[in-house]
Amino acid sequence: MQYPKTLVSILATMVCLISSAVQAGETRPVAIAIHAGAGTIRREELSTEKDQQIRAKLEQALRAGHEVLLSGGSGLTAVTTAINIMEDSPLFNAGKGAVFNAEGHNELDASIMDGATLNAGAVAAVRHIRNPINLALKVMTGSRHVMMMGEGAEKFALEQGFELVDPKYFHTDHRWQQLQEKKAAETAMGTYEHSWYSTVGTVVLDQAGNLAAGTSTGGLTNKRWGRVGDTPIIGAGNYANNESCAVSATGTGEYFIRFVVAHSICERVKAGQSINDAAGALIHDVLVKAGGNGGVIAMDAKGNIAMPHNTAGMYRASINTAGELFIGIYSDD
Amino acid sequence: MQYPKTLVSILATMVCLISSAVQAGETRPVAIAIHAGAGTIRREELSTEKDQQIRAKLEQALRAGHEVLLSGGSGLTAVTTAINIMEDSPLFNAGKGAVFNAEGHNELDASIMDGATLNAGAVAAVRHIRNPINLALKVMTGSRHVMMMGEGAEKFALEQGFELVDPKYFHTDHRWQQLQEKKAAETAMGTYEHSWYSTVGTVVLDQAGNLAAGTSTGGLTNKRWGRVGDTPIIGAGNYANNESCAVSATGTGEYFIRFVVAHSICERVKAGQSINDAAGALIHDVLVKAGGNGGVIAMDAKGNIAMPHNTAGMYRASINTAGELFIGIYSDD
Repeated sequence: MQYPKTLVSILATMVCLISSAVQAGETRPVAIAIHAGAGTIRREELSTEKDQQIRAKLEQALRAGHEVLLSGGSGLTAVTTAINIMEDSPLFNAGKGAVFNAEGHNELDASIMDGATLNAGAVAAVRHIRNPINLALKVMTGSRHVMMMGEGAEKFALEQGFELVDPKYFHTDHRWQQLQEKKAAETAMGTYEHSWYSTVGTVVLDQAGNLAAGTSTGGLTNKRWGRVGDTPIIGAGNYANNESCAVSATGTGEYFIRFVVAHSICERVKAGQSINDAAGALIHDVLVKAGGNGGVIAMDAKGNIAMPHNTAGMYRASINTAGELFIGIYSDD
Repeated sequence: MQYPKTLVSILATMVCLISSAVQAGETRPVAIAIHAGAGTIRREELSTEKDQQIRAKLEQALRAGHEVLLSGGSGLTAVTTAINIMEDSPLFNAGKGAVFNAEGHNELDASIMDGATLNAGAVAAVRHIRNPINLALKVMTGSRHVMMMGEGAEKFALEQGFELVDPKYFHTDHRWQQLQEKKAAETAMGTYEHSWYSTVGTVVLDQAGNLAAGTSTGGLTNKRWGRVGDTPIIGAGNYANNESCAVSATGTGEYFIRFVVAHSICERVKAGQSINDAAGALIHDVLVKAGGNGGVIAMDAKGNIAMPHNTAGMYRASINTAGELFIGIYSDD
């Protein structure tokens, strides 16, 4: 088979352009870290098949976000790209795999923040939005507001051209089963002894030197009373600021709100602590003393990554500025 | 008229007890500051009658909260006592005087935080709760959650013995008129050129040395899309921590969320800045540069008070640890 000379020439030019972009990228390092929940998970509890499925999906989301960064895309686009893949997977508690609340509804929260401008967007308790992180971004870019909730947020979504999906889209048998088990187990008022806090999130450093963070969740199984967790709360479950760091959290949301965890980590970084020390202090010291469980992915302005968690495991993955890939489930991964 | 000797004796004992409590109080100083909104208000715009009404209501709320503190009551009780009086007044945008959203509903937000334990409670978008700050407190004390919203929060309220009031309770003619004027004035999507950001709040130091903060609001006139402002966001519009300070905010909520204003002020205090410098830096520097309007009341662990605002006025009042009363409306008050 022969190709016309012009096509070969065009292809050659494209390869050159991409290659020079990648070379330019080398002087402008990029990095990405993602998580998909934390909790008490042990090797013996997870089948080899499930373990592989999770690692494969994490890698897919991670590489997709990383590709955006390598090609010079914005951090915000990298964040939504990676999160969309996790939202669309039934494996994680966000989008398609969202858990059910006490009334049997899937109620989704998400937030996103741009470290360059400190612009932010968040949605809480939406029920018909396939990718809540995209609506959070639209709240940020298409309105003067930061946070919208419930039916009002969905009205905004419709005005902005979003499709409202049938709530059945979010139904997965294993989440429905989880709700029944939870209802059977819960006897006392307000009790929620969760062992797995699932939420998905992404933090990135893009070629322009901008940090961004995004987080998306289905909340708590059997949650009642319109409970809002830390995911849509800027400063608690999500925060990004080029001057300090980008953070996405997963865990007992109430503790992340009370200790303003994401913002606290970044304030420590701003004051001179390393991203490792700052994120570690909140997760292993402050939260542990208070009784809060979970973890964060955190990245400083140079792309250094910390992924501390005080639980037995956290689904997490990263590609650092040197291009090194890491994928982990258990603490000792 | 003669009184039985025993009654006289009982009264004398009570006076002694109260007097010794007050003396004990001298070694354990108390302080309180309240606000009821900030914005572009000038002397010529406010009638003498209205000016006096506002000052009188501020003083009533302030003194009621202060009495709780003097009698050894908890900071949280002082906060709800002062805020209830402002919520029950049609003068301020909280409770009875709440503004209307775009659909003609009154939708209320509130939050409260205990500086001793970092426990916190918040409600967003409730429509049938006469005193939202009391429900925020109940979320804190009667559930494991920090934040509840909408109908779910009201279901929780019912379970906890709260009365749901008819939404008509919140109707005031002047707020309805404001909505009509706002609707007529707003032409472009998302435009909300507010000149007065009204919210009520209280920060206190109690005899036990504990700080507490509470904030309550009706949000923005003509607000759409289930917009949530900073009032129910712990760290943004409200925060208290014995190790640093207590803050309640009022202003363009979106900026207070993005800059995590209340928590940022307290982090500066924790790092050694005075409450004046810390609160001033956020309000007069960070927010002004970003284009955010409003103010805060802030108190450190010694009861020092700062009430900076970058608007022409802020309804505010305080009694410091020396017992000195201040009531102000305009910047130069």
